Amino acid sequence: MGFARKEYEFLKELGLGPRNPGCFVHGGWRGSGPTVSSVNPVNNQTIAEVMEASIQDYEDGMQACNEAAKLWMQVPAPKRGEIVRQIGDALRAKLQHLGRLVSLEMGKILPEGIGEVQEIIDMCDYAVGLSRQLNGSIIPSERPNHVMMEMWNPLGIVGVITAFNFPCAVLGWNACIALVCGNCVVWKGAPTTPLITIAMTEIVAEVLEKNNLPGAIFTAFCGGAEIGQAIAKDTRIPLVSFTGSTKVGLMVQQTVSERFGKCLLELSGNNAIVIMDDADIPLAVRSVLFAAVGTAGQRCTTCRRLLLHDSIYDSVLEQLIGVYKQVKMGDPLEKGTLLGPLHTHASKEKFEKGMDIIKSQGGKILHGGSAIGSEGNFVQPAIVEISPNADVVKEELFGPVLYVMKFQTLNEAIEINNSVPQGLSSSIFTRKPEVIFKWLGPHGSDCGIVNVNIPTNGAEIGGAFGGEKATGGGREAGSDSWKQYMRRSTCTINYGSELPLAQGINFG
Amino acid sequence: MGFARKEYEFLKELGLGPRNPGCFVHGGWRGSGPTVSSVNPVNNQTIAEVMEASIQDYEDGMQACNEAAKLWMQVPAPKRGEIVRQIGDALRAKLQHLGRLVSLEMGKILPEGIGEVQEIIDMCDYAVGLSRQLNGSIIPSERPNHVMMEMWNPLGIVGVITAFNFPCAVLGWNACIALVCGNCVVWKGAPTTPLITIAMTEIVAEVLEKNNLPGAIFTAFCGGAEIGQAIAKDTRIPLVSFTGSTKVGLMVQQTVSERFGKCLLELSGNNAIVIMDDADIPLAVRSVLFAAVGTAGQRCTTCRRLLLHDSIYDSVLEQLIGVYKQVKMGDPLEKGTLLGPLHTHASKEKFEKGMDIIKSQGGKILHGGSAIGSEGNFVQPAIVEISPNADVVKEELFGPVLYVMKFQTLNEAIEINNSVPQGLSSSIFTRKPEVIFKWLGPHGSDCGIVNVNIPTNGAEIGGAFGGEKATGGGREAGSDSWKQYMRRSTCTINYGSELPLAQGINFG
Amino acid sequence: MGFARKEYEFLKELGLGPRNPGCFVHGGWRGSGPTVSSVNPVNNQTIAEVMEASIQDYEDGMQACNEAAKLWMQVPAPKRGEIVRQIGDALRAKLQHLGRLVSLEMGKILPEGIGEVQEIIDMCDYAVGLSRQLNGSIIPSERPNHVMMEMWNPLGIVGVITAFNFPCAVLGWNACIALVCGNCVVWKGAPTTPLITIAMTEIVAEVLEKNNLPGAIFTAFCGGAEIGQAIAKDTRIPLVSFTGSTKVGLMVQQTVSERFGKCLLELSGNNAIVIMDDADIPLAVRSVLFAAVGTAGQRCTTCRRLLLHDSIYDSVLEQLIGVYKQVKMGDPLEKGTLLGPLHTHASKEKFEKGMDIIKSQGGKILHGGSAIGSEGNFVQPAIVEISPNADVVKEELFGPVLYVMKFQTLNEAIEINNSVPQGLSSSIFTRKPEVIFKWLGPHGSDCGIVNVNIPTNGAEIGGAFGGEKATGGGREAGSDSWKQYMRRSTCTINYGSELPLAQGINFG
Amino acid sequence: MGFARKEYEFLKELGLGPRNPGCFVHGGWRGSGPTVSSVNPVNNQTIAEVMEASIQDYEDGMQACNEAAKLWMQVPAPKRGEIVRQIGDALRAKLQHLGRLVSLEMGKILPEGIGEVQEIIDMCDYAVGLSRQLNGSIIPSERPNHVMMEMWNPLGIVGVITAFNFPCAVLGWNACIALVCGNCVVWKGAPTTPLITIAMTEIVAEVLEKNNLPGAIFTAFCGGAEIGQAIAKDTRIPLVSFTGSTKVGLMVQQTVSERFGKCLLELSGNNAIVIMDDADIPLAVRSVLFAAVGTAGQRCTTCRRLLLHDSIYDSVLEQLIGVYKQVKMGDPLEKGTLLGPLHTHASKEKFEKGMDIIKSQGGKILHGGSAIGSEGNFVQPAIVEISPNADVVKEELFGPVLYVMKFQTLNEAIEINNSVPQGLSSSIFTRKPEVIFKWLGPHGSDCGIVNVNIPTNGAEIGGAFGGEKATGGGREAGSDSWKQYMRRSTCTINYGSELPLAQGINFG
Repeated sequence: MGFARKEYEFLKELGLGPRNPGCFVHGGWRGSGPTVSSVNPVNNQTIAEVMEASIQDYEDGMQACNEAAKLWMQVPAPKRGEIVRQIGDALRAKLQHLGRLVSLEMGKILPEGIGEVQEIIDMCDYAVGLSRQLNGSIIPSERPNHVMMEMWNPLGIVGVITAFNFPCAVLGWNACIALVCGNCVVWKGAPTTPLITIAMTEIVAEVLEKNNLPGAIFTAFCGGAEIGQAIAKDTRIPLVSFTGSTKVGLMVQQTVSERFGKCLLELSGNNAIVIMDDADIPLAVRSVLFAAVGTAGQRCTTCRRLLLHDSIYDSVLEQLIGVYKQVKMGDPLEKGTLLGPLHTHASKEKFEKGMDIIKSQGGKILHGGSAIGSEGNFVQPAIVEISPNADVVKEELFGPVLYVMKFQTLNEAIEINNSVPQGLSSSIFTRKPEVIFKWLGPHGSDCGIVNVNIPTNGAEIGGAFGGEKATGGGREAGSDSWKQYMRRSTCTINYGSELPLAQGINFG
Repeated sequence: MGFARKEYEFLKELGLGPRNPGCFVHGGWRGSGPTVSSVNPVNNQTIAEVMEASIQDYEDGMQACNEAAKLWMQVPAPKRGEIVRQIGDALRAKLQHLGRLVSLEMGKILPEGIGEVQEIIDMCDYAVGLSRQLNGSIIPSERPNHVMMEMWNPLGIVGVITAFNFPCAVLGWNACIALVCGNCVVWKGAPTTPLITIAMTEIVAEVLEKNNLPGAIFTAFCGGAEIGQAIAKDTRIPLVSFTGSTKVGLMVQQTVSERFGKCLLELSGNNAIVIMDDADIPLAVRSVLFAAVGTAGQRCTTCRRLLLHDSIYDSVLEQLIGVYKQVKMGDPLEKGTLLGPLHTHASKEKFEKGMDIIKSQGGKILHGGSAIGSEGNFVQPAIVEISPNADVVKEELFGPVLYVMKFQTLNEAIEINNSVPQGLSSSIFTRKPEVIFKWLGPHGSDCGIVNVNIPTNGAEIGGAFGGEKATGGGREAGSDSWKQYMRRSTCTINYGSELPLAQGINFG
Repeated sequence: MGFARKEYEFLKELGLGPRNPGCFVHGGWRGSGPTVSSVNPVNNQTIAEVMEASIQDYEDGMQACNEAAKLWMQVPAPKRGEIVRQIGDALRAKLQHLGRLVSLEMGKILPEGIGEVQEIIDMCDYAVGLSRQLNGSIIPSERPNHVMMEMWNPLGIVGVITAFNFPCAVLGWNACIALVCGNCVVWKGAPTTPLITIAMTEIVAEVLEKNNLPGAIFTAFCGGAEIGQAIAKDTRIPLVSFTGSTKVGLMVQQTVSERFGKCLLELSGNNAIVIMDDADIPLAVRSVLFAAVGTAGQRCTTCRRLLLHDSIYDSVLEQLIGVYKQVKMGDPLEKGTLLGPLHTHASKEKFEKGMDIIKSQGGKILHGGSAIGSEGNFVQPAIVEISPNADVVKEELFGPVLYVMKFQTLNEAIEINNSVPQGLSSSIFTRKPEVIFKWLGPHGSDCGIVNVNIPTNGAEIGGAFGGEKATGGGREAGSDSWKQYMRRSTCTINYGSELPLAQGINFG
Repeated sequence: MGFARKEYEFLKELGLGPRNPGCFVHGGWRGSGPTVSSVNPVNNQTIAEVMEASIQDYEDGMQACNEAAKLWMQVPAPKRGEIVRQIGDALRAKLQHLGRLVSLEMGKILPEGIGEVQEIIDMCDYAVGLSRQLNGSIIPSERPNHVMMEMWNPLGIVGVITAFNFPCAVLGWNACIALVCGNCVVWKGAPTTPLITIAMTEIVAEVLEKNNLPGAIFTAFCGGAEIGQAIAKDTRIPLVSFTGSTKVGLMVQQTVSERFGKCLLELSGNNAIVIMDDADIPLAVRSVLFAAVGTAGQRCTTCRRLLLHDSIYDSVLEQLIGVYKQVKMGDPLEKGTLLGPLHTHASKEKFEKGMDIIKSQGGKILHGGSAIGSEGNFVQPAIVEISPNADVVKEELFGPVLYVMKFQTLNEAIEINNSVPQGLSSSIFTRKPEVIFKWLGPHGSDCGIVNVNIPTNGAEIGGAFGGEKATGGGREAGSDSWKQYMRRSTCTINYGSELPLAQGINFG
């Protein structure tokens, strides 16, 4: 049996067929849960079918994973780094195909699909270096003949639950670090991007096999909320990294906390760009376009709020509407397309419903805002003039809607920026050092990502990625994010024969 | 009106009288909540009275604190360090009196009372140095004319809820770091140690006043659960540091998470000492005594489980019972006393009830275990032979009860050590490098504190203090614990005029 | 016998008399070398007399110091920090007197004298914190059952040779760090500031004595080149920290290298301030004044070259001459004085000779430049218009001479800034981010200190102080400067019973 | 024209022929200096000929390199990392051939030849990760509206002079780090291993070309002392990394210092293994064999001194002589060979002369010590009983000679270990924690490498490699060694409009 369309044939190069088992368990493929369809957002027709995980699949997978963890944590970190290096090389070999699949199944444009895979490759390279730098400390002890050390040991298993919008890069951020840190990975991909979950897993699996390592080091499940909950409740999983909405993230957090596990949360954003009167306007406009329309507004770092200084308000708005008009919408795999469809039909409906709410709360739609055609999930990106106090502005409408607001002073702009529950990303456009450093300082943006003269999206892996407040507080990728994937112990060794006490206490 | 006893007169040196307002709000003292008695655990008679906080006191305090936060976070960190240095010097000047008060009100022996205050002084000294080292990073950007920076900014306000057993040191761990990090501190001390809360606050308040700083930078409340809950729910408090039981800690965590605040939890411990057959036995026995009987077993790091290698079991037990017999019990302020009373009458009752449960679960009491006298809260420290699987062994009975168990192999000892829900502290006594590093490694102790040839208690401030699993995962004092008291932002500044994108993406 | 003048009586508070032994050797004072006079630069009359070190004094001192080093390096670092804390407190108690002495003997104005002592106090506070953070690393090993560690151990003895212009702060930078790092200190102060050397040493000595530590931990010599050479050649001194001219520094370096010791060099500066056309001119002018005239131009960070953008050249120059005219010259101890005398009569002669050379090389003296009066060492600060290519501009004339030059472009300004052999400090005044980051970047200033909108002088202790090229490359005070005062060892412990080799080599 | 022997044909795969230009200058190959022969140490016959660099070649190369430096330092560090990654991959593709060449031209056995190339590959992988972690710091300023930063910028050009014994790994340590740090590399390989120099350079050159980067980023010269001196004197080269003898290294240092350049020196070692009475003797004996006989005693980390505890002296010696007798000597390319020839005929003569000196100083040759055959440079590895005080023991005789000595106490063993001028590597064999930590501590080994239960040689790249005292003090490869390849600047930006001064000074 072949694929429905000839243009899907490239999926064979990624080990995919028209019908695919969706669980990688104990080094083998299976799937005894429901069969689901992977759907092309351009036309809402099936690309291929996937058998999802049953709870039995999950349990079998976790048992094998738990066994594998005992072995993997004893492999020296630089050797683990070598495995991750090989994964990076295997991804590099399939970069084009994987990028194409991301674009096909998720709906983002091809350069972004390839960029997403490139980001995992970058993460692999980074993690290889890191595998020799997971350093503990030797801390001077106040007691003679004592040595104090801070050691970092693997956690065992890291659960990774990812969302449709970055169907593999977020896995990459987590898995690359988790693996060099000595953890096995249990991955549940988004229910609507199962082919990517399978293709990515296949690549990792081959590397493990080539190195005679248990496949269960990397365990993957296609599945939905049931599997997600199983992960959240599973005491064998000390750390659950969850990417998704604030609402679900909070439930995950409470469930995991209940059993004294840890969460790494990457939840909703509600990101603003502030344009000051001294900004480089063409640079700013180009940035807003990329940040608001890129990935059809379905990035967690998508710019959702545009704060314009009074004196440039009209002019920027005019330019922005001008560039919005030129955005080429269409098949994300076609060259030149800047805007693909929303990921699902439900997203499209949500978008339309959102427009109604916006209007009912006083929002004035300056551009776009309607769904287009009936076949796929295309919508016209919207520019909306609205008060910063409108309720809808406090929420994350996951599509290409940009709220535009006016401010008079830097303080006011910062206040509006910080007035939403979320705290992921934020940007200012200005050329004044005093404005830049205020923005970066204690009374500036309260987000995890604080940019200047670049959009809210497009993070580099060397920094820590994540946000504050309702965004969940987790940090992924660079900086010292790796510490979250390890357990820290403060160790004191007495190698002498006396027992001096700290703080000079005398006992007995 | 004077104190009930002449020996309480020294309290005047600490600004205390027979009746004391228990809230330091907006730089002044008040207390419109219930009046409570501070009770001497030696005789359960009142030392002095304290007017606790009402919810109105709380609200007034928080409003002032919130205002003060705006100012304090702009004071340069090294200047904040200078304030903390002065607090350290002020404590140094009152070390003896404060230590005496700790001993009097909490019931620990005087050297430990003084040691506890000394620990805050050490923390102050440490924090002063830290105030010039709260370093962010400049990270190489992959984009030309871009600079990537990781900045650390103050959180604003840190809530600190402390427990009776370290009525001031835990405040010290948190407040010294929180203050140099640019945060105001809101402190709720334990309901049964209000005099210490007041005396400590008084010292801090004087330093703030001398420097013309708002007293609200340090806001303190004597009070109970109501105030605790108010702190947990208060969105003005981004971080709540809670020390106490796992049960209450979990409630705090869920409440704070609900509003997307952060917690730093220091919860129950259930700490084991493992003695290998090659251990230095006299050193080990002395350590067990200090760890199990010190502070009447009311440290979170108290040794509660003693794991003895089969071959030395009888001999160690015999020696241990021998030293237990020589422990001098009595008034903690008297020279030579090693064991004071339990902190409250309720603790004494719990201890007695615990003994019953132990027996009902097969525990064999080898030494001690009964309450003594009727006036104070004195109990005989107990040594109990019991199975590691007994339910009671999984819980923290907050008194001087030591469960003794036998093991054959290192692996077995580690398994028992890790078999409880808590993960605070642990120690092994051995002279073999291979045993030491196994103990410290991925398959070793799963605790936050992992010691060798020293007891489970008596941490130095240079390391990070805290534990895993049901102990809550927080880390206080040294290492990079300060990062928990700040918010991190990943900042990218584009100082060029182009807009290159990360991962080499081309958009438009 | 009393002091020549009543206003010197305060020196008694610092333990000084009219005749003072100048060596602190083995915990006692002596001085069997030549007797020299400490001279007041205001009038070139004797303040007091000092007996300098003979080579025998030196040898005796070093023997005791070498013994003391064995003990001191075993004192736990946090305990060493406590000693340094006490030194800081002792200095705090004598801040006014010591600052007064610095002003009196060196000739700098009183606020600078007090500021210099304050800097040592700051260093002490900083070093106390550091004493718990002299961290080594635990590095992941590629070999199973191996642990790799980077340890930092004391060097033993650090020799510190300081210059007259910062007669005690430079000792402070070095000694505070050296001491917490576990080293004994051997100090040779400048020959012309012996009273400060003695007073400082006295304070340290008292603290050591109070703590029952050998005085030889801090060994000090008043003396000249002979003692300096003895230090440079002494194999018992693994590190020599030298502050002074490039010429002498190079000799020290070659001598110390010959015996495989290490040097930490703080040599000549030749520091430029660049003022761009968009600068805040009043801020810039005020900064140039402080940087060029402060300490009578005798700081290593004194601004010696002023690079003005063509478009603001005339205007800035005019304003600068205006403020130069208002500078109050006189007794440095008098309130309101901004400019004291040069330190010695020889300096004054050098200054006058320098003026002749400047003129002979085409320099045009726009303001000042002549000596004043005959009693003290006063000179009028000079502003000189000169080509950046003149030979004299490449050298450090250690007095208040400011060379003014014109440039057209940022690149040209940077080229001139970098065109001198020295590389200590540099500043730019601008409000443009692109200029700031170019200045800080690979094609910017090549100095160790690179400032923006502040003068070339006035460093904070939290950063690393020092310069590149002929300035010698050493770094003092903050950041990781402490590493220079310790020896690093890369340690690998095999705690297993196998012998795997790195890089997977198979041998035998 | 072909190679003299068929077995050299594989060299073609590395771009080598019978006659090769030895300079890579401005992206092209040339060589207008003397023609020299690369000689096979097995038979002293020519492998191929090489045209070395003339001074004109050098000057042309440096001019191009200096130009390339301006470009390379502006390439973002992660992009530079990508180039180094590609170099690593190119080496991986030629691992077997390059390893074979190392074995052929240098004379070490094939597994060591391959291991040496693997080490460069490891370094590349490590450096890729590092390229996103060359972090500067943001340091809290004591002044409001000021930000203090520590920035790291490229030096420009790094000169690397390597020795015959690690003809390419040492280049790898330096070049990988230097390149990601933004520096061009100028390499002078050892005069007797020109083919390796050419082959390595060829691989780097191809990667540069493929990426359209100037070849001059990597400039290489085959040549001798004249080129070495030119590098040492060249003010365009801020850092010279030199590996070789202490004698030459000191000359390089003084020459480079004279022009205020910096040196990174890896000079002679004189490394001891201490075997305590509680050691795992079989492990120790196997380690000594690898450390003393491996690479025919021509590693800088070769064990040259064996310190045996009195009680095991005879037994260990007997076992050691036993294993020495079984060492298979022969062609290093043959499977099973453990000991190849010395590198040159001169080395062989030096070895023989060394034996005479040893005898004349009272050394007793217990095993080996004579040259073997006449064709190649083979010698029998020697075991010599000698006093630690003999002059010859203080020097590095660069061949397989092991001095055996007896000690009674740990202190005595440490004293002997530290009694030589060199301070590179050292090992102890023991199972006692107190011995281990004394050995690692302030009164332990004074070397840069301090091992326990592994040999003196065989370092991992994650740690810093290098030694103290006459070994020169440089550190290569891991830890923070990269800092030596960059220049540090302490930057303060005032973004406010006031001019507060450090230390609270008031000026004017």
